[in-house]
This record gives sequence, C-alpha cells and structure tokens, in this order.
Amino acid sequence: MKALNETGPLTSKIKWLISATSSSWIEQAISNPIEVLIDHAHCERKAAGVALQMMFRYLCEPGLAEVLSPLVKEELEHFDRVLSILKSRGRYLEPLPSPPYAALLSKNIRKEEPSRMLDSFLVAGLIEARSHERMGLLSAHSPDQELKELYGDLLKSESRHFGLYWCLASERFEESLILSRLMELATIESNLLSVLHPMPRMHS
Amino acid sequence: MKALNETGPLTSKIKWLISATSSSWIEQAISNPIEVLIDHAHCERKAAGVALQMMFRYLCEPGLAEVLSPLVKEELEHFDRVLSILKSRGRYLEPLPSPPYAALLSKNIRKEEPSRMLDSFLVAGLIEARSHERMGLLSAHSPDQELKELYGDLLKSESRHFGLYWCLASERFEESLILSRLMELATIESNLLSVLHPMPRMHS
Repeated sequence: MKALNETGPLTSKIKWLISATSSSWIEQAISNPIEVLIDHAHCERKAAGVALQMMFRYLCEPGLAEVLSPLVKEELEHFDRVLSILKSRGRYLEPLPSPPYAALLSKNIRKEEPSRMLDSFLVAGLIEARSHERMGLLSAHSPDQELKELYGDLLKSESRHFGLYWCLASERFEESLILSRLMELATIESNLLSVLHPMPRMHS
Repeated sequence: MKALNETGPLTSKIKWLISATSSSWIEQAISNPIEVLIDHAHCERKAAGVALQMMFRYLCEPGLAEVLSPLVKEELEHFDRVLSILKSRGRYLEPLPSPPYAALLSKNIRKEEPSRMLDSFLVAGLIEARSHERMGLLSAHSPDQELKELYGDLLKSESRHFGLYWCLASERFEESLILSRLMELATIESNLLSVLHPMPRMHS
C-alpha cells in the first residue's frame, strides 16, 4: 500500500473544493444517520468500481494499475466496515435512489483522450475530496460515538485518495493544464451542491 | 477474510472439472512463461471485475457482498504480485487477445433469475477450478524457480475460490439442482479446452 501513503505534501497546496458544505447538510445528515450510512456503503463500492474501471480502461499505462489496485482494495475495506456496522444495527444494504451529484459531475468528463483521462482523475478526486470534507463534518458533529469513530478513521485514508488522483494527473499532464481544468470542474462540483437535495445522502 | 477460509470440507467432495488438462498445454505454457504470466495478470483482474460486477448486481442479497468483497481484494493482491514479477523482468501489462474460453463459457449463463445467479456462480467457480488445476501444473513443471513459487503460493487461495462459489450456490439453491447444472456446464467447459488453442494462455 506504499503508493497510498505518498501523496501528502504534493497536494496539501491544492485547493480542490471551491465551497464548504452548508450547515443544512450537516443537520440533514446527522438527523438521518442510517440512511446516510447505507448511502455511504454504496459510495464506497461505487468508488471501488470507478477505480477498477479506470484501471481496466488504461491497462497498459505504466504506473496506473499499481496505484489503482490498492485503492480499489482500500475502498472495499471501507465498504466492509460500513456494512458490518449496518449489520450490527440490524440493517443491510438497501437500494437507495442516488442523488444527481456524481452522475451530473461525471457528465463533464470529455470523451476524447487524453482529456478523458485527466477529467476522470479530477472528477474522481473531487468526489473523494468532498467525501473527505463531509466525513470530517460527520466525525465532528455526529452524536453517535460509533459513527464518530468510523468517520474519523475513514477520513485519514480518504484524505490520501484525492491526493492520489492528483499525483496520477500530475505525472501525466502539465500543472497549469491540471489546475485550470480543476478550477472548472470544482466550480461545477460546488454548484451541484449549492442547493441541498431532499434525500439525505453523502452527496446531497 | 474469514469467509475465504471456510470452504474446504464442503467442496472437496464436488467434482468441478470433467477432464484433466493435456500435456500439450503444459508444454505450450512452460515454453512461453512471460506470455502466460501477462495473461495471468489479466485473468486476475478479470476475476476481480467479475466478482465486483456480481456484487453490484445482487447488492441487497444478504451474505453475498461479505464474501465477494474479500474475494475481489484477494484477486487484486494476486494481480499486484504478478505485475510486480513482470516489472522485475522488465515487462508490463500488454494487450493480449483473449482465448475464446471464458467468453464462450459465459454465454451459457441463462438470462432469467434465479438461473442467472446460479449459472454465474458455477461459471465463475469452473474458471477458478481450472485456474487452480493449471497453476498446480505450472508449479509442478515450471523450470523457473520464481514462477514455481508464485504458482505454488497462489494455488492455495485459488483452491478456496471455487469452494467459495460453491458455498454461495449451496446457500441459495437445492444441491441436486446445482449438481445437475454443474455437470452440464463442466461438460461444456471441458469441451472448450479439448483442442489446444494456438495462443499460449492460462485457458488456451
């Protein structure tokens, strides 16, 4: 898992998120802890799926599978942990309608290479950055001690994940190009969350 | 990883493979170790992809994600290990045309549920069982000490994988139904390998 630990200094200077999450999201989330937890399990498995799909798409690109394969495993470890808490509370995965956030953000991934690769890294990184920010809020504000600890623990690795996507991008693209595209996508990301979605979700 | 260790006794009685691999395959494989190794890396990532896809398809089926998520992680650990050996030999993942084996076998997965689920478990289990048999042959016959050890190590967990698919099936279907369908699919599997494919592959 070495690659997952090497992204701190490079990315701490980069501002991924344009705007901070509103207090109305925090209130909505901590009032609906189980629904957010089930949605969180879905987010972890989807993050694993996205990373695996990216690994398959760019199979012969040196240095990519070595980073994405450990990332998939770590997302699934988080999935396992969330599922285990759900089960301990007598619940399980349930089909939850997704909020429009991830699908609308992903629509901005350009179709032609190499833009497609850059956008894929940045969109995945933005979703990780937002998850990281929101897990931090849940860890700080949740009145449930077990969930507080869960989010606090996951937070530590989530913070490396968006750094990891930054590294994947910076190894392959010019910094000025990455930063200008990141600014465009981060603005879209921020706008998508500017109005609270009525369903309590990690990205409502 | 508890679930991955609990499949031995149940499945040692079940005959997955109808016919043994021919000596012509062994000769072809040990004469082309790097090509088989690259194909092997692809097999491990595809096995991870199949298990993750199955997990996504049957998300709300209790007891499934708990087994398939650790399986995906284990397949990716194998992928990482094979990739690392390839890199130490100055090679990387390369696009290799697949032999027709897995695609033709998977065509026999019926479209309607619950047959689709049963067939998905059995086809995945058959591919694991064949991989297990062939890794055993490579471990026994390879003149390359590092590859001999690699296949010997992977063998141990591969043997649990087909047992695991058997368990997933037997928790949900009648044993007589599983056995009769397994016999049909195992016959097809065996026929698919009855003539050696000209490309040196794990399933040529």
